[in-house]
Amino acid sequence: MTQLLKGKEVADALTEKLQSQVKEMKEKGIAPCLAIIRVGENPSDLSYERGALKRAEKVGITVRQYVYDEAIDQETLIGDLEGINQDDSIHGVLIFQPLPKQIDDGAVRKVLKPEKDVDGITEGSLCGVFSASHRGFAPCTARACMEILNYYGIDPAGKRAAVLGRSLVIGKPAAMMIMEKNGTVTVCHSKTGEARMMEICKESDIILAAMGRAGMIDSRYLTGSQIVIDVGINVDQHGNLCGDVDFESASRLCEAITPVPGGVGAVTTAVLMLQVVEAAQQEMF
Amino acid sequence: MTQLLKGKEVADALTEKLQSQVKEMKEKGIAPCLAIIRVGENPSDLSYERGALKRAEKVGITVRQYVYDEAIDQETLIGDLEGINQDDSIHGVLIFQPLPKQIDDGAVRKVLKPEKDVDGITEGSLCGVFSASHRGFAPCTARACMEILNYYGIDPAGKRAAVLGRSLVIGKPAAMMIMEKNGTVTVCHSKTGEARMMEICKESDIILAAMGRAGMIDSRYLTGSQIVIDVGINVDQHGNLCGDVDFESASRLCEAITPVPGGVGAVTTAVLMLQVVEAAQQEMF
Repeated sequence: MTQLLKGKEVADALTEKLQSQVKEMKEKGIAPCLAIIRVGENPSDLSYERGALKRAEKVGITVRQYVYDEAIDQETLIGDLEGINQDDSIHGVLIFQPLPKQIDDGAVRKVLKPEKDVDGITEGSLCGVFSASHRGFAPCTARACMEILNYYGIDPAGKRAAVLGRSLVIGKPAAMMIMEKNGTVTVCHSKTGEARMMEICKESDIILAAMGRAGMIDSRYLTGSQIVIDVGINVDQHGNLCGDVDFESASRLCEAITPVPGGVGAVTTAVLMLQVVEAAQQEMF
Repeated sequence: MTQLLKGKEVADALTEKLQSQVKEMKEKGIAPCLAIIRVGENPSDLSYERGALKRAEKVGITVRQYVYDEAIDQETLIGDLEGINQDDSIHGVLIFQPLPKQIDDGAVRKVLKPEKDVDGITEGSLCGVFSASHRGFAPCTARACMEILNYYGIDPAGKRAAVLGRSLVIGKPAAMMIMEKNGTVTVCHSKTGEARMMEICKESDIILAAMGRAGMIDSRYLTGSQIVIDVGINVDQHGNLCGDVDFESASRLCEAITPVPGGVGAVTTAVLMLQVVEAAQQEMF
């Protein structure tokens, strides 16, 4: 019987743990606070923001919203971000990207302090993930995958993992984090070729699918013993949300699998709050 | 017949190319210059420095040596490094590490500009390698492996590579660079287990051995079709220099192999000069 790795359970457990941590922190005079910087009204930004606000409220984290018109100039945005860097009452910052074309995303990222970079977008955070130095923070979705494995008692140590996709927001950081947990990771990508990718997936214990190709991974990639983490968020030809994994097919031939929706995506805002709390805790010491 | 991938040939070809590039640059008024910062008289630092000086002279690169007594304090060293950062006539910096214990290596690394970090030790360089953004420079030994593959016409694209070792100076950056060249990389390490590592090596087309274990890789890891790059520098029980690969055994069952000595190690100073020239070229534009 294939185990369903539900994101909601992971998010709920994280939320509960964070609630009591935040309560304790507030008793010591620290109120964890997240700044959300959004330019314009991109529907997917708004949707993620609503989820983050709801999660923050549950956990007891204060959110300060910085909302700007599409026409904002880079100097104003960077000036405000510098102010946020200086403001000890703000512990974490989420900046929706990409920013409008008059603004250089890279220049903005450069300003943000890695210590407040709870969404893992700065050079300091990326280097922290690459070197396992724990400076800054990992991208939330990559860490959400790790939190799912952790919650369900799946230890990557001594296991083989196939990470499908080599993006800086998921594939590469997830590979580094699995490696840090002593897993043996193979990173596959568009140039790996289908036959070879099937072979590698079949040899693996954990498959993390983050290629951005709807329903690509099916039972042909599996032998029955894999744990499948589906990071994909795509829309299929019928207009339905679907992952990079063909759930119907794959779930028949694996040990455990995350659904889409209700899998990795359900954990990201909880991870964002976890990282805000960690950022605030670092301030305490 | 197993092909011997000689480092000297690669270094000679690089040196020749660099000679004409440096000549052209000097005609345009740019004289590439490397600063070498050495604290104390560590024999292996001195040996590497001699090699670098010789190579620099061949190529036509000026070297400015900063040699300090073991007792140097951090402020002086950092002050000098800040001066080097500002000095437009110096394009690259090599700092021998570890530094004496009164000096915080991390604090020193933080000061160095990634644009002059031709040995790939700064956060900016590491992030550049991780993100393939080409900011800063890769660690010289990792890039030396890539230059050997390149010289002998071995394109990682579509191939499987096993990188053995996950250090920040070789394993991880080499994995990223092979991935950037569209190879499919598996990173093995001490927790992978011998049987599994053998299996992964046998499935691979390229093996990059950087575990730091003398003669560990032998014919049991091979099928006859592998290209073996040996990054190890160890001393065996007879006091002889040897790699991570048991050359006798492995060379009978692979397609191509680098010797030790005379393999990867013979290419590093040429790569250092290559990166100094690249740093100087960036200044030209």
